[in-house]
Amino acid sequence: MKLVIDCLGGDQSPGANIDGSLRALDRYPDLELVLCGDEAAISAYLAQKATPEARAKISLVHAPGVITGDDKPTDAIRLKKDSSMMSAIRLLREDETVSGIVSTGATGSLIAAATLRIGRIPGVIRPAFCPILPTMDGGVVGLCDSGANVDCSPQQLVQFAIMASAYMKVNFGKDSPRVALLNVGTEAEKGDDLRRETYKILSQLPFINFVGNMESRDFISGKYDLVVADGFSGNVLVKSTEGTALQLLKKIKRDIYSRNVYKLGALFMKKMFEEEKEFMNYQNYGGSVLLGTEKVIVKGHGSSDEAAVFACIRQAYTMATANLRDIICAEIEKAEGFMENIG
Amino acid sequence: MKLVIDCLGGDQSPGANIDGSLRALDRYPDLELVLCGDEAAISAYLAQKATPEARAKISLVHAPGVITGDDKPTDAIRLKKDSSMMSAIRLLREDETVSGIVSTGATGSLIAAATLRIGRIPGVIRPAFCPILPTMDGGVVGLCDSGANVDCSPQQLVQFAIMASAYMKVNFGKDSPRVALLNVGTEAEKGDDLRRETYKILSQLPFINFVGNMESRDFISGKYDLVVADGFSGNVLVKSTEGTALQLLKKIKRDIYSRNVYKLGALFMKKMFEEEKEFMNYQNYGGSVLLGTEKVIVKGHGSSDEAAVFACIRQAYTMATANLRDIICAEIEKAEGFMENIG
Repeated sequence: MKLVIDCLGGDQSPGANIDGSLRALDRYPDLELVLCGDEAAISAYLAQKATPEARAKISLVHAPGVITGDDKPTDAIRLKKDSSMMSAIRLLREDETVSGIVSTGATGSLIAAATLRIGRIPGVIRPAFCPILPTMDGGVVGLCDSGANVDCSPQQLVQFAIMASAYMKVNFGKDSPRVALLNVGTEAEKGDDLRRETYKILSQLPFINFVGNMESRDFISGKYDLVVADGFSGNVLVKSTEGTALQLLKKIKRDIYSRNVYKLGALFMKKMFEEEKEFMNYQNYGGSVLLGTEKVIVKGHGSSDEAAVFACIRQAYTMATANLRDIICAEIEKAEGFMENIG
Repeated sequence: MKLVIDCLGGDQSPGANIDGSLRALDRYPDLELVLCGDEAAISAYLAQKATPEARAKISLVHAPGVITGDDKPTDAIRLKKDSSMMSAIRLLREDETVSGIVSTGATGSLIAAATLRIGRIPGVIRPAFCPILPTMDGGVVGLCDSGANVDCSPQQLVQFAIMASAYMKVNFGKDSPRVALLNVGTEAEKGDDLRRETYKILSQLPFINFVGNMESRDFISGKYDLVVADGFSGNVLVKSTEGTALQLLKKIKRDIYSRNVYKLGALFMKKMFEEEKEFMNYQNYGGSVLLGTEKVIVKGHGSSDEAAVFACIRQAYTMATANLRDIICAEIEKAEGFMENIG
């Protein structure tokens, strides 16, 4: 089992990426890693931190260029060929022994490069991006697509449901993930043509546990394991959920300082507020994955620390070991046959 | 100045609706109100609470039927003609002395009935719904459209910007409202064709203070006065903002009870948590308005109390007094001329 790690582009790169890699090597004896980044810097870091056993399972690719969120993805792909991210993608494309990539770099560039350079699973119309968010009952919910495809057909939305259901099964142990369709109301006839047509197909597909339309207010309620959306509204949903939570916690923090009695109370509750912030920080629940490509693509949060990078590698390892690619391939084929029948 | 008040359909109806009406009559000497609902019940309530001066400015329409959120809007319009909401809409349509309606009833039915039965301002393609939300700096932000139009053209989005800018000016004293376009990223070329075309027009319209694309995470940051969106993604945004805030506050409340030290701290902070909840409760910032119709349509939150109903009536009164209809009519015409020129 070999994975490539993009060691640049995160806020705590390359340290967190390398530390997370070492932890993963320690945990999974059959794992080998290729680290992409500034070779001299990584070597020096490894000389200090890696055991000889771990070091033997690491190979390096010198690719010192960094892609940031300011780079336009199409430019990044075309002009930053020697960047760690693009070198990692190139290796993933060319070396058939490498099963997947973990990156904490720029999301847009990673999605674009993986979509353009890594082949699609047969039958998949377009890959889709699926982050994981915390729910109020202590569980998690997936959202697919959250930004890779701003224009979608009903067939694409159905594929998102299939691919992400398989992912939630394999990675989060959800036997029969409850799938909802993001809509403006819960009734079957709500929304535009895209939603009505998607609803019709999903409610007839026997191997998807489709529970109906969902309004965005219920996204993190815990009633759903997976929400299916076009990439535009999915992107609006994930960013407003994260943004509202963080802004509200920030406001509470500020308001605490407005009165002495609040400050006094907050002394007792400091830990709780820290926990709430950690709770809403969705990097803690693992990386976001691009589903539908021949190889595993995991995107860690830009602020990922060692634990978050490790969680992303564990995710990639699980997806590759379970052969999620083959499961998706088979389910997509099964669904196509079914959709032809329901016409 | 005459307005019609739908006195049924809210959680605290008819009491809150009548009390709010009396407060408005007390505040605005030139105001007259028509109350729609169960005539006997309203009469009995007024006999107890209304001064003779207020009672003289009230007329009643007997319409005891209630439309709920469970009624399909098209059915509500067709089958519940004697409901308070449909009677109020009929009066608004037929009586030219009535300038607007305030309702705390079912949103979908009100939007549908007003869109179908009340004429559009010349040039307006479709009316749009605009709620107001609190921002983290203590201000407010409008969102237009938030659900009346799930499919939109660039021309419609431009009209939403024009209509809601005029509204934010008249009702919230914002001289030159900062208008943002809801998108998946801030760069000009982000999003789908709808977003790119809308961006192009908005950035050239001289009388709109267009400040660019906005990601949903910044919606309540205070950086914008008005956000323009298609009704689908706007609906996702407003409901996820409200839903996330309320769920997070609920979770914090629950977590407080998990440890005695938190309970102790919370004793000092009870008032603050109540304030945060009130802060995020967007009924406190006034009703949502339907923009683009010949008459004023204000929708109060279903849970509106006396103060919230009064705020809605004040809003309707302000819009009618300022003749927002004429302002919108003139601006839409001006924009059409401009758009023909930029082709």
